[in-house]
Amino acid sequence: MLTFVGLGLYDERSITVAGRDAVGEADRVVAEFYTSTLAGATVADLEAYHGVDVEVRDRAGVEQSPGDVLDDAEGRDVVFLTAGDTMVSTTHVDLRLRAHERGIETRVVHGTTAQTAASSLTGLQNYRFGKATTLPFGRSHGGEGVPGSVTDTIDANRERGLHTLVFLDIDAANDAYMRADEAAELLADAWRDDLAVAVARAGSPDPVVRADALSTLAGESFGDPLHLLVVPGDLHHVERDALVELAGAPRSLVGE
Amino acid sequence: MLTFVGLGLYDERSITVAGRDAVGEADRVVAEFYTSTLAGATVADLEAYHGVDVEVRDRAGVEQSPGDVLDDAEGRDVVFLTAGDTMVSTTHVDLRLRAHERGIETRVVHGTTAQTAASSLTGLQNYRFGKATTLPFGRSHGGEGVPGSVTDTIDANRERGLHTLVFLDIDAANDAYMRADEAAELLADAWRDDLAVAVARAGSPDPVVRADALSTLAGESFGDPLHLLVVPGDLHHVERDALVELAGAPRSLVGE
Repeated sequence: MLTFVGLGLYDERSITVAGRDAVGEADRVVAEFYTSTLAGATVADLEAYHGVDVEVRDRAGVEQSPGDVLDDAEGRDVVFLTAGDTMVSTTHVDLRLRAHERGIETRVVHGTTAQTAASSLTGLQNYRFGKATTLPFGRSHGGEGVPGSVTDTIDANRERGLHTLVFLDIDAANDAYMRADEAAELLADAWRDDLAVAVARAGSPDPVVRADALSTLAGESFGDPLHLLVVPGDLHHVERDALVELAGAPRSLVGE
Repeated sequence: MLTFVGLGLYDERSITVAGRDAVGEADRVVAEFYTSTLAGATVADLEAYHGVDVEVRDRAGVEQSPGDVLDDAEGRDVVFLTAGDTMVSTTHVDLRLRAHERGIETRVVHGTTAQTAASSLTGLQNYRFGKATTLPFGRSHGGEGVPGSVTDTIDANRERGLHTLVFLDIDAANDAYMRADEAAELLADAWRDDLAVAVARAGSPDPVVRADALSTLAGESFGDPLHLLVVPGDLHHVERDALVELAGAPRSLVGE
């Protein structure tokens, strides 16, 4: 059996009880932290909390040579851990399909996600979000500034009045996480005076949620990673109040 | 302090460890189950698991008379529980704003959501979903068939190649939960031969994920609630394989 368990958003206590039980009962625990990471816990923290050894694999170890994990999962209970939810990346769907092809039973134990937190912490309603996008570091997409796919997504959502969740690039190999102020600076080229919401450390005991013009957010700092950014579309009156009261948005920027 | 805690998707073990700790430390625990519900646990199960009393409130008790809860949260630790994530409904944002106005500290402990599970269980990628929508019972929207807002949302997402998560109506007062086959039958009027994915009991140990033409899904049954439905847009090749291998979609319906 191969059980995919989402670790949730922040630290070793972000996992669900069902997930913790699956880890505790496993014969072997494998993890990857290149698609996302837990900013509030190290691998040693996870090992101590769960009382297990955690083998961390890099991208090549998951995508090109998962053979030993699958071999093991034929006869024993193997848990595969990822930050957030378990199937955020096609990589993991692919691994699940490989297991399925070999007749290995698979199971998914869900985790909390940035998508959920973006909505919950900002007060922006989940059914008013359109397609999400990811803002990459220049070195990741081999260009300068903001890729057209990102601006197109924000524009297309806004045409329909919808909010856009902007995931910020994670370069795990270099321990680099794009900050919300960097992201705001990049987006301010196109939308200087437009409202955005920076969210830092979603899922932690001390998240920061801050709404203001992109050019203003570009000059602020939001502390430790992970960060994300939301570009709102049309605002319902409760959403307006939430951004003003809970995120410090200037009333002039939220309308009405 | 008023702490909003999401119970997650299915039963008493769907809560995060951080959420469980918040419940255990609370002086008073209030819950509502009218915006969503835990299909796999009763209130008595929750009380036994957490070793606390849980006061369940109906809509009026949350929206019109939350005064005693807020009074209490001024001096004590009150936890407010909801199924799924905590801020799925404007109701709860509104309650949080009321607390904030009174100078009560608030905190959010996230839970796993249907949105996450819809993506994770089906293998459909989270950043390829557009706006979500809710399909109501006829008696809820006072009409027959499918409201224009639902078909418009699905159409607008498809134009952009995006998937649509269709939440199915919950009528908690009458203990009625729309089933995925009912939903498929309603949507089959417009899109008889189009592909959709039924998901039942997301977050439980025995979820069902089944992809086929809407008219076919309309004639199947998926067991106990909660159900949801996904109407896919354009499919990536890993998504195609996932729907065929993990959800039994006929290869002819997923293309290529």
